[in-house]
Amino acid sequence: MQIGMIGLGRMGGNMAKRLAAGGHTVVGYDMSPDSGRDVDSLEALVAALDAPRTVWVMVPAGKPTDSTIDTLYDLLDEGDMVIDGGNTRYVDDARHAEQLAAKGIHFMDCGVSGGVWGIKRGYALMVGGSAEDFERVRPLYETLKPEGEYGLVHAGPVGGGHFAKMVHNGIEYGMMQAFGEGFATMVRSELVSDPAAVMTSWKSGSVVGSWLLDLLADAFKSDPTLKDMPPVANESGEAKWMIEAALELGVPTPATAAALYARQTSRGGGDDTLRVVSTMRAQFGGHVTKA
Amino acid sequence: MQIGMIGLGRMGGNMAKRLAAGGHTVVGYDMSPDSGRDVDSLEALVAALDAPRTVWVMVPAGKPTDSTIDTLYDLLDEGDMVIDGGNTRYVDDARHAEQLAAKGIHFMDCGVSGGVWGIKRGYALMVGGSAEDFERVRPLYETLKPEGEYGLVHAGPVGGGHFAKMVHNGIEYGMMQAFGEGFATMVRSELVSDPAAVMTSWKSGSVVGSWLLDLLADAFKSDPTLKDMPPVANESGEAKWMIEAALELGVPTPATAAALYARQTSRGGGDDTLRVVSTMRAQFGGHVTKA
Amino acid sequence: MQIGMIGLGRMGGNMAKRLAAGGHTVVGYDMSPDSGRDVDSLEALVAALDAPRTVWVMVPAGKPTDSTIDTLYDLLDEGDMVIDGGNTRYVDDARHAEQLAAKGIHFMDCGVSGGVWGIKRGYALMVGGSAEDFERVRPLYETLKPEGEYGLVHAGPVGGGHFAKMVHNGIEYGMMQAFGEGFATMVRSELVSDPAAVMTSWKSGSVVGSWLLDLLADAFKSDPTLKDMPPVANESGEAKWMIEAALELGVPTPATAAALYARQTSRGGGDDTLRVVSTMRAQFGGHVTKA
Amino acid sequence: MQIGMIGLGRMGGNMAKRLAAGGHTVVGYDMSPDSGRDVDSLEALVAALDAPRTVWVMVPAGKPTDSTIDTLYDLLDEGDMVIDGGNTRYVDDARHAEQLAAKGIHFMDCGVSGGVWGIKRGYALMVGGSAEDFERVRPLYETLKPEGEYGLVHAGPVGGGHFAKMVHNGIEYGMMQAFGEGFATMVRSELVSDPAAVMTSWKSGSVVGSWLLDLLADAFKSDPTLKDMPPVANESGEAKWMIEAALELGVPTPATAAALYARQTSRGGGDDTLRVVSTMRAQFGGHVTKA
Repeated sequence: MQIGMIGLGRMGGNMAKRLAAGGHTVVGYDMSPDSGRDVDSLEALVAALDAPRTVWVMVPAGKPTDSTIDTLYDLLDEGDMVIDGGNTRYVDDARHAEQLAAKGIHFMDCGVSGGVWGIKRGYALMVGGSAEDFERVRPLYETLKPEGEYGLVHAGPVGGGHFAKMVHNGIEYGMMQAFGEGFATMVRSELVSDPAAVMTSWKSGSVVGSWLLDLLADAFKSDPTLKDMPPVANESGEAKWMIEAALELGVPTPATAAALYARQTSRGGGDDTLRVVSTMRAQFGGHVTKA
Repeated sequence: MQIGMIGLGRMGGNMAKRLAAGGHTVVGYDMSPDSGRDVDSLEALVAALDAPRTVWVMVPAGKPTDSTIDTLYDLLDEGDMVIDGGNTRYVDDARHAEQLAAKGIHFMDCGVSGGVWGIKRGYALMVGGSAEDFERVRPLYETLKPEGEYGLVHAGPVGGGHFAKMVHNGIEYGMMQAFGEGFATMVRSELVSDPAAVMTSWKSGSVVGSWLLDLLADAFKSDPTLKDMPPVANESGEAKWMIEAALELGVPTPATAAALYARQTSRGGGDDTLRVVSTMRAQFGGHVTKA
Repeated sequence: MQIGMIGLGRMGGNMAKRLAAGGHTVVGYDMSPDSGRDVDSLEALVAALDAPRTVWVMVPAGKPTDSTIDTLYDLLDEGDMVIDGGNTRYVDDARHAEQLAAKGIHFMDCGVSGGVWGIKRGYALMVGGSAEDFERVRPLYETLKPEGEYGLVHAGPVGGGHFAKMVHNGIEYGMMQAFGEGFATMVRSELVSDPAAVMTSWKSGSVVGSWLLDLLADAFKSDPTLKDMPPVANESGEAKWMIEAALELGVPTPATAAALYARQTSRGGGDDTLRVVSTMRAQFGGHVTKA
Repeated sequence: MQIGMIGLGRMGGNMAKRLAAGGHTVVGYDMSPDSGRDVDSLEALVAALDAPRTVWVMVPAGKPTDSTIDTLYDLLDEGDMVIDGGNTRYVDDARHAEQLAAKGIHFMDCGVSGGVWGIKRGYALMVGGSAEDFERVRPLYETLKPEGEYGLVHAGPVGGGHFAKMVHNGIEYGMMQAFGEGFATMVRSELVSDPAAVMTSWKSGSVVGSWLLDLLADAFKSDPTLKDMPPVANESGEAKWMIEAALELGVPTPATAAALYARQTSRGGGDDTLRVVSTMRAQFGGHVTKA
């Protein structure tokens, strides 16, 4: 198939290469002249594609995606299709779909997992949209996904792809936190000589065997104590959105919340809470003189 | 009544004064010569009391309490009574009681709450031991407790006093954390001009009215932002013991655990967990080159 | 002052009485003919008030409040004022204010705490809006609030009143959960003979002394085991909104979340999570035959 | 090597078979006559082995393991070795080692993971004890472990094997809870048509790829909604012990605790907490008449 790829960063660039290697005709655009882009404007991208066009948006979520879709709304024609493969919050998908539908432009949302490994391993894809739209661009998905039976799912209507990806990332948060808590507990115990060696041994035969563990074991090779890694972690938004979605659905997600809170705390989010706690302790414990 | 008070620190010293003011004869001992002690050794303390003696131990939990009770075991006689009013872990009470019982020495555990305010307000007392022992020294408890109907309870057999006090402090942890989370949320919102003023207003008419809130409101008078207070809090052991006791009893205590974890995190307890999380993110996100 | 009160339920009805007792002229309206209403329509309510009018909306949050404000927009004139005293989510306040401002109608949001006790004790009020508007209707707030220095605060601009009330209720959730966890732990321990007696004793001298504890102690008088109370709790929305607001602000609220999750779990919200856990256990433990 | 295997249940029986298939001489004993045991008493087991003997204890943790080790203490001779491969709490290992050392009997603890799959896949082994002891029986470990580089680790001194296994299981709890929360969130969303299909698709290309996910996907084949699985889960002790160990080490483990608490809650552990919450709500909301 022919496809326009908007955004040639680490994700979009690699996906464009995997698509091209899979026999598709990819026209790539990126804001940056150094991106290896094929065209230097969205207008040129649209002009370079035959109708009905398929355009894959792979830019940061929020304003960049919003404004890209605004522009595509102006440039594209009835029957064209926009696929948002970025990390857009699922609630924005309905808005984008509705906006584009006013001109008869189709819309799909596609959650993409795989990181830097995707170009080789293939990407796990979770797709939202109509069954017709899914079939129309299935060849693209089939090329991007890993070989074999798994790695691609039509998750539901518009929004379902990003919802599934959001949940996927929330689970990932919980798994990472679980591994972290286990490592931290062993580090402080005198009974475990080498926590990195213990965790590396779990790569075979263990119930916790996983790709995340494999990655951690790789990192342990060069730094078994992880002391070079600062004890802070950023959040990407998706776990937060999952927790909020679950709250509204009445589903408790305490492990996912624990994982997110650990990251927010590492960024100082709990500082004022502790100030209150210590202030109260000082007041009733008598450490501070009362006026 | 006549009573020997061992430990004349902030708690024991004030309690001795309240007992004396209540008409009891108090013989005070402390390791420190500057404590205002009446006698300069445990031997002298025991010698100064008429049998059957009552001795109140008000020293730090753990080794200091253990060794004090060891010495008292040697010095006291059948029919004497030891009351442990410190923050001893409830599991140690049975051990102390059994040790002393070998010589016919009675034992009670008494959890004491009140902080620096107790000398004036009276102390909340939670007592463990037999009904007979409770009645025997009830006059002491009646003097120490606040005026009125409340503030003293015979919680159960030996260990029950410290168990109740442990739970009491666990609840306190949860309440403090709840206030802290509310304050921290308001601090970051543009919609609340003065979180300290809001919380102070809750002193009347509100469901969250409480002594802890009153103390916080007092502190807000001199520092409404609490920015002078470092964002760290220590733990005293009791919430941890409550969480462990509840775990063994099959009772989930997630709010209490959240409160304790916030404090342990502020002391760096979660650092290695975050190192694992960030390491994994770097591995699959491609921020770190793999060897 | 003259005021129209819309909604004469348990909260609005009692507030109308307290206002009338305080010397204000109250015109009450409610959908129900049995409510003791003074007028039988919003039109009649508006007609009965002298311009510039003040109308207090005390109806359920969400659609009832939205549609009431829609109607008031049609009926009221420039210079009139609407106060939303219900449990509206703070994010809706800006919308209501903007809607009414188009016709020059003033808007304030007022979080109200106090439950059935407010008519006697007075209500804790947290108000959002401009300083001018606050001063204009201050006499109403002064009558509703408890006697004394506390219980009324101008929390911030429009939305600030409901934001503060939301946080207030979130704190309340955490406090209730903390007391609950403590009670539950004592119930299962053999060391505490009567958990209700222990908690009741804390009414004096203790750090956890609070209005919530007083209420609990009242309930213990008739049912010290609480066995007649089903082990489920509903949620009112505000703790959920606080957790979401805090998530967006980057503030971890683990104790508040624990409290909300306990309630959602009691309503079956965690059932599917446990199904997954048990399914996995069965798979690797061999309890279920694999096809 | 020659080895005596005590306990021929699902784990011990399969391990005995894998050892025998690997060329070792296994003498099996079990309390049950239907177990396929080689000898009908511990005395006979010991008599059947050549000194210095190696005996692997694979019976339930706690009293069964304690009494087995007591008996072995009586029967074995200096230079013999006991390996405890059960789910013993790590704190008991030092006690067992000390007890046996009084007669010169060696002791190792070995945490074993693998479930019913271990006989084929091999078992992940985490071993505690001295380096000399580890080398002495390494051939047994090499046979039990999976093929390849991983699956066996000498974790540390006595206790280290069970400590590592305890942490391993705690991580497993967190991972399972994370998957459960994700599934539960999707089940309640209208945007995801088939949560089972979504999760199954993650088997390839995704960051959450893992053995647990593979097992879940297998189960989805016969029951994609899991509605036949009751929403309850038991706990096996190890996550609880890990949380307690971490508490004492000052390491917060909120995700692990969330996982354990979800299981304890499903068994009614939070019921009394909710009774308190609902009682308080009734008191201040006026749903219950106050005496």
